[in-house]
Amino acid sequence: MSQPKVVLAFSGGLDTSFCVKYLAEDRGYEVYSVLVDTGGFSDEELKTIEANAYALGVKQHATISKTKEYYNDCIKYLIFGNILKNNTYPLSVSAERIFQAVAVAEYAKEIGASAIAHGSTGAGNDQVRFDMAFRIIVPEAEIITPIRDLKLSREAEIEYLTAKGVSRDWTKAAYSINKGLWGTSVGGKETLTSDQYLPESAWPTQITKTEPERITLEFVGGELKGVAGETFENSVTAIQKLAEIAQPFGIGRDIHVGDTIIGIKGRVGFEAAAPLIIIKAHHTLEKHVLTEQQLYWKEQLANWYGSLLHKGQFVEPVMRNIETFLGDTQSHVTGKVHVYLAPHRFHVEGIESPYDLMSSKFGSYGEMNNAWTGDDVRGFSKVASNQVMIYGKVSDSVEK
Amino acid sequence: MSQPKVVLAFSGGLDTSFCVKYLAEDRGYEVYSVLVDTGGFSDEELKTIEANAYALGVKQHATISKTKEYYNDCIKYLIFGNILKNNTYPLSVSAERIFQAVAVAEYAKEIGASAIAHGSTGAGNDQVRFDMAFRIIVPEAEIITPIRDLKLSREAEIEYLTAKGVSRDWTKAAYSINKGLWGTSVGGKETLTSDQYLPESAWPTQITKTEPERITLEFVGGELKGVAGETFENSVTAIQKLAEIAQPFGIGRDIHVGDTIIGIKGRVGFEAAAPLIIIKAHHTLEKHVLTEQQLYWKEQLANWYGSLLHKGQFVEPVMRNIETFLGDTQSHVTGKVHVYLAPHRFHVEGIESPYDLMSSKFGSYGEMNNAWTGDDVRGFSKVASNQVMIYGKVSDSVEK
Amino acid sequence: MSQPKVVLAFSGGLDTSFCVKYLAEDRGYEVYSVLVDTGGFSDEELKTIEANAYALGVKQHATISKTKEYYNDCIKYLIFGNILKNNTYPLSVSAERIFQAVAVAEYAKEIGASAIAHGSTGAGNDQVRFDMAFRIIVPEAEIITPIRDLKLSREAEIEYLTAKGVSRDWTKAAYSINKGLWGTSVGGKETLTSDQYLPESAWPTQITKTEPERITLEFVGGELKGVAGETFENSVTAIQKLAEIAQPFGIGRDIHVGDTIIGIKGRVGFEAAAPLIIIKAHHTLEKHVLTEQQLYWKEQLANWYGSLLHKGQFVEPVMRNIETFLGDTQSHVTGKVHVYLAPHRFHVEGIESPYDLMSSKFGSYGEMNNAWTGDDVRGFSKVASNQVMIYGKVSDSVEK
Amino acid sequence: MSQPKVVLAFSGGLDTSFCVKYLAEDRGYEVYSVLVDTGGFSDEELKTIEANAYALGVKQHATISKTKEYYNDCIKYLIFGNILKNNTYPLSVSAERIFQAVAVAEYAKEIGASAIAHGSTGAGNDQVRFDMAFRIIVPEAEIITPIRDLKLSREAEIEYLTAKGVSRDWTKAAYSINKGLWGTSVGGKETLTSDQYLPESAWPTQITKTEPERITLEFVGGELKGVAGETFENSVTAIQKLAEIAQPFGIGRDIHVGDTIIGIKGRVGFEAAAPLIIIKAHHTLEKHVLTEQQLYWKEQLANWYGSLLHKGQFVEPVMRNIETFLGDTQSHVTGKVHVYLAPHRFHVEGIESPYDLMSSKFGSYGEMNNAWTGDDVRGFSKVASNQVMIYGKVSDSVEK
Repeated sequence: MSQPKVVLAFSGGLDTSFCVKYLAEDRGYEVYSVLVDTGGFSDEELKTIEANAYALGVKQHATISKTKEYYNDCIKYLIFGNILKNNTYPLSVSAERIFQAVAVAEYAKEIGASAIAHGSTGAGNDQVRFDMAFRIIVPEAEIITPIRDLKLSREAEIEYLTAKGVSRDWTKAAYSINKGLWGTSVGGKETLTSDQYLPESAWPTQITKTEPERITLEFVGGELKGVAGETFENSVTAIQKLAEIAQPFGIGRDIHVGDTIIGIKGRVGFEAAAPLIIIKAHHTLEKHVLTEQQLYWKEQLANWYGSLLHKGQFVEPVMRNIETFLGDTQSHVTGKVHVYLAPHRFHVEGIESPYDLMSSKFGSYGEMNNAWTGDDVRGFSKVASNQVMIYGKVSDSVEK
Repeated sequence: MSQPKVVLAFSGGLDTSFCVKYLAEDRGYEVYSVLVDTGGFSDEELKTIEANAYALGVKQHATISKTKEYYNDCIKYLIFGNILKNNTYPLSVSAERIFQAVAVAEYAKEIGASAIAHGSTGAGNDQVRFDMAFRIIVPEAEIITPIRDLKLSREAEIEYLTAKGVSRDWTKAAYSINKGLWGTSVGGKETLTSDQYLPESAWPTQITKTEPERITLEFVGGELKGVAGETFENSVTAIQKLAEIAQPFGIGRDIHVGDTIIGIKGRVGFEAAAPLIIIKAHHTLEKHVLTEQQLYWKEQLANWYGSLLHKGQFVEPVMRNIETFLGDTQSHVTGKVHVYLAPHRFHVEGIESPYDLMSSKFGSYGEMNNAWTGDDVRGFSKVASNQVMIYGKVSDSVEK
Repeated sequence: MSQPKVVLAFSGGLDTSFCVKYLAEDRGYEVYSVLVDTGGFSDEELKTIEANAYALGVKQHATISKTKEYYNDCIKYLIFGNILKNNTYPLSVSAERIFQAVAVAEYAKEIGASAIAHGSTGAGNDQVRFDMAFRIIVPEAEIITPIRDLKLSREAEIEYLTAKGVSRDWTKAAYSINKGLWGTSVGGKETLTSDQYLPESAWPTQITKTEPERITLEFVGGELKGVAGETFENSVTAIQKLAEIAQPFGIGRDIHVGDTIIGIKGRVGFEAAAPLIIIKAHHTLEKHVLTEQQLYWKEQLANWYGSLLHKGQFVEPVMRNIETFLGDTQSHVTGKVHVYLAPHRFHVEGIESPYDLMSSKFGSYGEMNNAWTGDDVRGFSKVASNQVMIYGKVSDSVEK
Repeated sequence: MSQPKVVLAFSGGLDTSFCVKYLAEDRGYEVYSVLVDTGGFSDEELKTIEANAYALGVKQHATISKTKEYYNDCIKYLIFGNILKNNTYPLSVSAERIFQAVAVAEYAKEIGASAIAHGSTGAGNDQVRFDMAFRIIVPEAEIITPIRDLKLSREAEIEYLTAKGVSRDWTKAAYSINKGLWGTSVGGKETLTSDQYLPESAWPTQITKTEPERITLEFVGGELKGVAGETFENSVTAIQKLAEIAQPFGIGRDIHVGDTIIGIKGRVGFEAAAPLIIIKAHHTLEKHVLTEQQLYWKEQLANWYGSLLHKGQFVEPVMRNIETFLGDTQSHVTGKVHVYLAPHRFHVEGIESPYDLMSSKFGSYGEMNNAWTGDDVRGFSKVASNQVMIYGKVSDSVEK
């Protein structure tokens, strides 16, 4: 009889290395390890991880490259929606993890695995993201979560692996870092308190640029297509280019305090120069080219989108409906945005767009013009205050 | 027969000086000039303005001091609601102007004026704010708007005043500045374009501090009561103290692009160190002490509040209902917020509060605890994904 | 020199008949009268109106048939969105009028008219709808509104027309009726009070059916395609068929109290059997086939859509974005809805759909199943109450 | 050593009778049974239940009368908010169950129980409501759910009880009925399908009135204080009076299809004459006395309130904030509402209120008046269409 197949979301760290051995040897599975690359790994890192997987004894290791899809199916909408969770956090990890979870689940469906596993502990957001994506996409597969269930200490895991003949340097870093296309998160020590900030040394990208720079970003239909004079067909490359220019300024660092899916408050540091600059630039451009009504509803739907994404609800059908809405609003979001970069900070200097509604051709703020008269505004004010005026009169008449 | 009375919102500038003469001499009114002080004027400035009013021939000049009320009835709610229009602008001028307009209208009602006048042109937001407040609060009074109606050039106004024997230096400043408790706006030149930023020299407060400082803000029930070790009974003074400390860093400068009440896009520069720091600090504290649901609905209602305030709808009854809601959410918003100040920027380092929901006593993010188990989360994920799982199965069954 | 052209929205009533003569003879225009048919007129009525137009001396009369477009570009979305203003009124007149106004404006643009006219008074919603559509679509054309501007009494208008040789029976009906594809409105007498209801005799369709009937409606992708066993390619015909069956029951009568665009409250009676049945049926079907999240956001956007439509903002770009969203949600809204009709009332009996999420195949409410266990729900409840539980503990700890 | 105490939410039915025996004899608890009366029981029923409890061997039985609190702390806000889940269901059971769960939990806290139990199965909403209220209010107490955990059949439960010497007639009714102050639910047979409606015989209140009646409801500050000429200090009695008058007409029957807390769709029949009439009457009164803005935000917050209530989140702090908001909007909601009752249906005929904004004193819809002119509206329309007009011009200029 053939062994049952399990697909394991594999990162190469201690927890998922333990999972491979445990699933294969204690649970009798044929282990298919899979790593979904969304732009956070170098080719070399990917090779090392693959080698480690085979060394641990997986039946097969798959590196699924999904960076382009990650941008197209997710990051693009975070930009269209100017999404910053609690006006702060670009959802760097939230977006990446759920996207990876979905890809792992689809892979499991494809190869017909009877089980699917992840190495998350029982204390964070990621477990829910994996659980939900797995349950929705491959509902028949058993979900196995060795780390969450066995609650082993790092020491016990290392001992287990050593006993199985696996020995590597498992020293834990001072901070837990997650690097991806849409920003890098930093957790540990200070982020576990409410009152302390990360020290300079904790930030993954140290500051190496000290002289201010001015760059221009070009958007076409809401997508970043040009950075500092260079044009990109693929927005992924444009984002990476901007990160390369801006991150050495230490731009986009902050600590996000938020509500985890499991109801407790959590704090995470992050550096995300490119996401923060792109969102501010894109939003400024939108303020010039969209109507007040469009801006209002974009914000409503986008905040919700970010919130569901954070909670692992990426597969919920309403997400597709919201993406359709957001995409439909971007036809005029084309133009240049001038940005000023300096150590620790940036600001948007201004924009140029053929769709600019501030175009002086059609009346400027603070200057009279031919499109309407003072009398028109007088009438407007009068009619617009009718209801509250009547409300006041009625109130007065009752009080008397 | 006695002359009819007109109340004029008087700032002492060219436009409202013209109005005094015009109303008194061309229209035959007894002119009651009134200046509503919301914290933007020094005693000396107020005296000069009063003297000018009488020199122009007003029957009576009133300086109505409303700073405390301005804070209590308006600014306080902008803080409770963390209100930044389009995530950028603290509504510095919007709030002040409508508050002043309401005070002028109430004064007119009090003294039984048959007319009420403002000096706004026909090209901006302020005219609508004055019109609406006047119409709602003193609907029987005629609203007279000489500048909007006569459309005189500055030169023509000066000529008129000179002919009436009034001569002062009416030279126009390069930028139009409006200084108030909740920030200073800067308009002109670059802000009339879409693509240019204000030069260093245009900012009212030049940067004189270069060494970073750390300060602690103390909030009690959502209100700022302590700044850098000093305690204030009156939050107005606390705000002024913070401005004094932070504005010399050049913090809180930006350009806001927004939708004017009359439908066109407008751009305005502003510097607002204290408002931006207070809002970010208050919001961070709230993220620690309020539930996710409270944060969501506060944001919804607060954004709307800001939007109606901007549009001159301060007297709309729903504003009182929203204030009640916002006030009701603040009982736990008590604690210290540590802030780091540096030239051009600041960040919140952390908070301390007895109401902190991140308190490690009750379970920390990323660490297992006794309040729930991995199995509980597994069950949560399962139930939370039920609907979308079923949706997927139903879709599959139809497609087959 | 050629005469300037004016396009006039013409209904054939006293007001617009006056406008023809006035525009042609007092203002010297070549009058192009236009009637936009959205399904409220019989062929005979259209012919009479055309004849009357020519008799009044128009240069040209156009009957623009837009029923299909009216359904496709507007009514369809009112159905997708289950839109009832204030949970009551299907926007019968609001939708029709703005749609007509847009069609008139486009016609004026097409023939290059230098002016465009409507016969609305200064006291209702329609004037704003015409004004706005005209201004946005043909901003260069002068908008002429003789009835609003001249404020003539009916008697004066009749006298004017008689003097010009036009004599018809202009007797005013007891109630003002507006019949259209999406319902019939009834205004007058009782609707001008707050406390009185329309008498039986005032309803345009008298009750002639007394025996209950059961019918089945069939929806395909959200659109009504079958009624009582008959299939329709064109949903317009399906709506008309349903009206024919249901209106004789006196179903869908009510009085709507709402906020007019000009700020005052207004009351209007209506009978709209087909719209109310379709919306309730469509909504019930949606409750079975859409997710909770989809239902929530559909309602948010749809209510706003209805509100902007009511206010004459049909051309606002966000309306197109909302339509895209609504359309995107309808792919599963396919199935049968069983409806019970009786005098004055109806109810939905049930639905059948391949997309029904209540399908017993995947777990039924109130019955245990294999998809999740009691333990799973226990875990769900625990995690879902974490935040409020912690909030309670923190509050207690502070109070002590 | 003393026995541990368990508090059991006791209804007297088979499931909770089983629980008493099981908790006392198999688990060794001292059982404190408690029934929370929210207006759904007669004195006689309460006595029988108490007697049954003691017969089963509880240490103590408590009947907690909470009808007044139920109205004051919950129903009142459902009225203020005109809350109908999915525009259909007055939340009859949802409100009652969570309110009872909270009262049971508070009782357990009071007597210092170490465990708390409910008899819900693992297949419905109620288990989550009990779980959550228990967990939040008495987090230290163990939650015991014998029916959910043991998954016994009715037969097995009866056998167990018989073996323990308890014998009663446990015959199951054809429909499961839950009668309360805010409506009666009916579940079973047809409600388990998607396509069938409840037969006439299934409705708890059979139709005994056939002649239409007209009654007047009086609201004071949003609360029902008068019904058909009779005045009530206590709104609970007013609601009961109205139910007595209206339910015999068969008014307020329908089937609600909704999303359960556990993600599946559920269907429930209900009859709720008083709730539906009160909500429609209250809402109509509000449409006359509140501003458009107030109506909009009331609806937003109220729908959310209903949704959280349904999901067992009654204790969430935001619920208190929303209640404060809703309460704050009711000061003008005073007046009479005339209602027409007939078999199976009712409609609101009209209202009278000193706060009526439709008051003809201040301008009527459809009639010109002195408060504004046609020119004012022309100006209003012009300014209100500025943005979309500019949008159109900008679009045209790009296309060219």
